[in-house]
Amino acid sequence: MTTQIRWPDPYVTGPLRAVVEASPLVFGLTNYITAGLNANMVLAVGGSPAIGGNPAAVEPLATAASGVWINLAAMVTDTPELLLTAARTAHDAGTRWVLDPVTVGAGIPVSDDLAAGLITTVPPTAVRGNASEVIALAGGTATSRGVDATATPEDAVPYAKDLARRTGAVIAISGPTDYVTDGSEVIAVPGGHRWLTKVTGAGCSLGALVATFLAPGTDPLRATVAAHAALAVAAERAVEHARGTGTFAAAVLDELTVLAEGS
Amino acid sequence: MTTQIRWPDPYVTGPLRAVVEASPLVFGLTNYITAGLNANMVLAVGGSPAIGGNPAAVEPLATAASGVWINLAAMVTDTPELLLTAARTAHDAGTRWVLDPVTVGAGIPVSDDLAAGLITTVPPTAVRGNASEVIALAGGTATSRGVDATATPEDAVPYAKDLARRTGAVIAISGPTDYVTDGSEVIAVPGGHRWLTKVTGAGCSLGALVATFLAPGTDPLRATVAAHAALAVAAERAVEHARGTGTFAAAVLDELTVLAEGS
Amino acid sequence: MTTQIRWPDPYVTGPLRAVVEASPLVFGLTNYITAGLNANMVLAVGGSPAIGGNPAAVEPLATAASGVWINLAAMVTDTPELLLTAARTAHDAGTRWVLDPVTVGAGIPVSDDLAAGLITTVPPTAVRGNASEVIALAGGTATSRGVDATATPEDAVPYAKDLARRTGAVIAISGPTDYVTDGSEVIAVPGGHRWLTKVTGAGCSLGALVATFLAPGTDPLRATVAAHAALAVAAERAVEHARGTGTFAAAVLDELTVLAEGS
Repeated sequence: MTTQIRWPDPYVTGPLRAVVEASPLVFGLTNYITAGLNANMVLAVGGSPAIGGNPAAVEPLATAASGVWINLAAMVTDTPELLLTAARTAHDAGTRWVLDPVTVGAGIPVSDDLAAGLITTVPPTAVRGNASEVIALAGGTATSRGVDATATPEDAVPYAKDLARRTGAVIAISGPTDYVTDGSEVIAVPGGHRWLTKVTGAGCSLGALVATFLAPGTDPLRATVAAHAALAVAAERAVEHARGTGTFAAAVLDELTVLAEGS
Repeated sequence: MTTQIRWPDPYVTGPLRAVVEASPLVFGLTNYITAGLNANMVLAVGGSPAIGGNPAAVEPLATAASGVWINLAAMVTDTPELLLTAARTAHDAGTRWVLDPVTVGAGIPVSDDLAAGLITTVPPTAVRGNASEVIALAGGTATSRGVDATATPEDAVPYAKDLARRTGAVIAISGPTDYVTDGSEVIAVPGGHRWLTKVTGAGCSLGALVATFLAPGTDPLRATVAAHAALAVAAERAVEHARGTGTFAAAVLDELTVLAEGS
Repeated sequence: MTTQIRWPDPYVTGPLRAVVEASPLVFGLTNYITAGLNANMVLAVGGSPAIGGNPAAVEPLATAASGVWINLAAMVTDTPELLLTAARTAHDAGTRWVLDPVTVGAGIPVSDDLAAGLITTVPPTAVRGNASEVIALAGGTATSRGVDATATPEDAVPYAKDLARRTGAVIAISGPTDYVTDGSEVIAVPGGHRWLTKVTGAGCSLGALVATFLAPGTDPLRATVAAHAALAVAAERAVEHARGTGTFAAAVLDELTVLAEGS
């Protein structure tokens, strides 16, 4: 059974208020293409971001933070070992962490292996990816069975439920409608706007936002749904202030600011 | 003889329509200062960008992509060997690739040597740079003969024609008026706006846009001209929606979105 | 005694005019989260930025530049040795350079050690940081004495004066009101807007702007004050054109463009 939730359902507005009150430190490893937008998204909803893979800083920051996100595209600048160190530090410190399995299933063996290792040894609190990434991560051999980039979020739901049950993580699938599951409940988050796929890093920002919404200690399913619902409503409202993808990107940050400052 | 072409000449609108229809994967190695803007430019015209120098991903991505661009300022994070691997992979796979010779002739020997090696061993489909870079790349000893950053695009045209004849590449020179040549024809693209030089990475984005316009298989001279004409007209229209360089950068992306969605 | 200075006091407008006239090359080492914004800020006030840690380019660029800034968060991609090389090159060439001691005092020993070494061996022309960073840098053992992130700029002024006297550098403290001192005079710069703390890299951009204002040879105290006053007034005006932090970031660049083009 799938429940549908939209902003401003109290189920999702409460977690944003918790972020604004806590102003949590959120640490991320991501890539340089999207790091600026990711940081600005975290700031807009009231979090305090730190990003980046200085080996000497990863352990202190992953320890000090209340939430951590690891985007596998961080391998543009960081080694697999460093990503593993960050995840392990978060895991061992009891800090909630989010895996964004970018490129898993896309034919880059080092990504696939790292993701599988992380899931098994230091399971994340939540995973968020697109349909193909979630299917590949859940299926193990999904790639070789021909899963392609045209998989829909709906196709990925059974894989997500299975993966959630096996790992204990909340799994979120991004798409025209997002789906979030803890293995039993499935919550659908409609909304957003197609221009979100035309702004580099907007999808990756969901990983950062989920870590931010998890940071104050909110129930993981609820926090993950709230992060998706906040970005979805911000995008819907942003399009009214945008002429194209440039002003749209700025307007999404604006609408998140408005949500946070009004919460 | 120089022909002048402006948007919306069908010679340049056709290649944009081809990008929108193909939505090609375009892979780039560039630097972290401009990567976000470059990716957003590619997205705005309908391409699908992947950027970055994870050694394990460069070969799969340069193989899978329909267009590749290599900006020598990528050496901020990547080794010369990695750039060479990307170029060689594209070349050997028959994938069209674009060289953006940033800093060539500026007194950084490793850049000059790499550019010379690339041109000789794995010749690009197109080169785009400013006047000084094109003169330095074409002239070999141009730098030591005192070419400075005040060279005009018009000064660079004979060097560009010579370089095009020797390498088989289309050569584009950016400036107040851009010039593009295949060694026999020279096409001038007027337009643009001086604020393009005040937005970091706007010039570098031309390398990404040329790779995107080449990706669907359009004639290289026409594709290169079209990329320059699209950015020129977007900049001219953007300035009407801008108060300074911040809103201008967003508005350029907006106008590219409008061009692509209307094509 | 503290003097208060605001835009458009001639004490601060003159240095901007000098930047616009000189269009100086300004070289920075910073991190990939903020590099794009930093470069766009330098461009907006009329400077010509180069950023990044290609080892082969650091010496030529730090030599060729008229101003250099080094942000310790550059250690996300660069080694401490590279930062030291850049600072030493600037110092030995007589090029004015700015230290931005990001993360000093935050429990990352490599940052603290590097900052202490730079201050002692190749003293910068100016330092700009927040209150905690300046106190940590000045106090040596400040961190272990419990300095926390809630220190106010006013708390940091005595530390800044002491640090200025010992090093000969101008010290700037960013906050709701900024303070700049050469060890005897203290100048307060009111203004700005709280959203500056919600745009990633806006604080780091002050390091870049100080290097830019120092580049034409302006008196260091005056140049440092002018950089702070320009950003403060730009932020105050930007908020009138902004709905949230996304449009605010663009509007700050716009207002700097307007200041520079009107100067």
